[in-house]
Amino acid sequence: MNTFANGAAYVGREFVPIAQASISVLDWGFTRSDAVYDVVHVFNRGFFRLEDHLDRFERAMQARRLQPPEDRAQITAVLHKCVRLSGLENAYVAMVCSRGRPRAGGSRRPDDCENHLIAYAIPWIDVIPPEVQERGAHLWIASTPRIPDACKDPTVKNYQWGDLTSGLMEAHDNGFDTAILCDAEGFVTEGPGFNIFIVKDGRVLTPDRGSLHGITRLSVMELCAMQGIPASVEPIPRDVLEDADEVFAATTAGGIMPVSRVGKRILGNDRPGPISARLKQQYWQRHSQGWHYTAVE
Amino acid sequence: MNTFANGAAYVGREFVPIAQASISVLDWGFTRSDAVYDVVHVFNRGFFRLEDHLDRFERAMQARRLQPPEDRAQITAVLHKCVRLSGLENAYVAMVCSRGRPRAGGSRRPDDCENHLIAYAIPWIDVIPPEVQERGAHLWIASTPRIPDACKDPTVKNYQWGDLTSGLMEAHDNGFDTAILCDAEGFVTEGPGFNIFIVKDGRVLTPDRGSLHGITRLSVMELCAMQGIPASVEPIPRDVLEDADEVFAATTAGGIMPVSRVGKRILGNDRPGPISARLKQQYWQRHSQGWHYTAVE
Repeated sequence: MNTFANGAAYVGREFVPIAQASISVLDWGFTRSDAVYDVVHVFNRGFFRLEDHLDRFERAMQARRLQPPEDRAQITAVLHKCVRLSGLENAYVAMVCSRGRPRAGGSRRPDDCENHLIAYAIPWIDVIPPEVQERGAHLWIASTPRIPDACKDPTVKNYQWGDLTSGLMEAHDNGFDTAILCDAEGFVTEGPGFNIFIVKDGRVLTPDRGSLHGITRLSVMELCAMQGIPASVEPIPRDVLEDADEVFAATTAGGIMPVSRVGKRILGNDRPGPISARLKQQYWQRHSQGWHYTAVE
Repeated sequence: MNTFANGAAYVGREFVPIAQASISVLDWGFTRSDAVYDVVHVFNRGFFRLEDHLDRFERAMQARRLQPPEDRAQITAVLHKCVRLSGLENAYVAMVCSRGRPRAGGSRRPDDCENHLIAYAIPWIDVIPPEVQERGAHLWIASTPRIPDACKDPTVKNYQWGDLTSGLMEAHDNGFDTAILCDAEGFVTEGPGFNIFIVKDGRVLTPDRGSLHGITRLSVMELCAMQGIPASVEPIPRDVLEDADEVFAATTAGGIMPVSRVGKRILGNDRPGPISARLKQQYWQRHSQGWHYTAVE
């Protein structure tokens, strides 16, 4: 019996079973949500686009002036070891840098804090359950506006999910699977844990604002280029979403996930559209062929 | 030797020394900052305005649909016991309700989570150090705009401090003690952990937006009424702050804290103004007289 079978974590510079992985209730990563993170997935014992995720994690840490004791090589080794300890073939692997607590008690200065790294590998999570992906997700357009980019940079992956959680609760209240948020000007942004894509007249579009620069989003753009499908990042007014031919979501924790309903509108035949389905199929097929693959050591 | 001398906490339905008080790195209170909290202070072995803090905490939990197993009477008993165990005469006492984790693995629905209560009593914290309060705090007007009320209700006390932390880092970069944020329309809101007050022509003003309904703010309004000082809650454009006669901050963790500089502007004689000083003196004098006092049991 592997004690790490439910997941392996690295906290306080030690490896522990996930059930023991915790942080102080006084850590500013909790009390001020002063932390950045990233999530990479492992499929068939290999990381997908590991360097891209590490690049983004480093940019996020720099943006918030967070620096753990571990350098990039050590962070990489920690991630490999978490997966190895867990024995998981497919996994959700998180890296977090938290502000921590002031070295001397009483300080209220972020610069005085001892930043620290948390990492863990746990069994694969789908942001949208597989059976829902099969029929296509039902997407609610939330009334809660997305937090403006000027207040909080959405490209710095963070845990401040208040607006996303509000949108998600609205979606569930209305019998929908998940939500998409628009900003105060009525432009489409992202949902709780995923980027959104719209297919219209054979073109694939994704929002230029209020959104994470998703690594799966990047993969979608690459797949579109390979398939000869025109794709672009641009402002998307809400009515363009409502008038889409197809819609799909993209995230590390689930891949490419077709949507079959947007609000009261039923897309196509209430099933995943052809371009969404083709991209999803390509995404997983290329995974099997070792696309952007780094074997777990 | 009291093992609780550095603070006593209640987590996982048990009382533990503060050093052992932690939450799972998978708790949505951390990974989605999906939690609400409140802080009450203890002065001379008595809570200040305990029922007001509990009222606000309950409203916040309702707003986010959080409900721990403990009812109000049990939460009250937990707070008393944390303070009693710590042996502290003056303390910072926090109550937190976190979303927790889904009862069944894999769910992404907030409603499926097991909410839980965290509470702790630790030694008194001043948001602005006492020596800085003495000379008057130097306040930086941050360029980061406050998150709009429509995106995140500022009256629901939360840990999503990204904009406040950005403002605080700007302040420190510029050699200031702390920051005040304006919203995108240029109206004054609040700072990291405090409400702001402006004194102009003998009137006391505090913002009507982007701000917590502070319990100390309420105390200031009561003190103004007792002292015959006109006071109101209203929209405050940034130039009114810059043109103030006096400025002070108000928070549970520090009380009434005069400001002597706002950006490049030096107020009065670079020392706390007379109305601010009088309100501060009254605030603490009434504390000694048992104002809104609930003895720790």
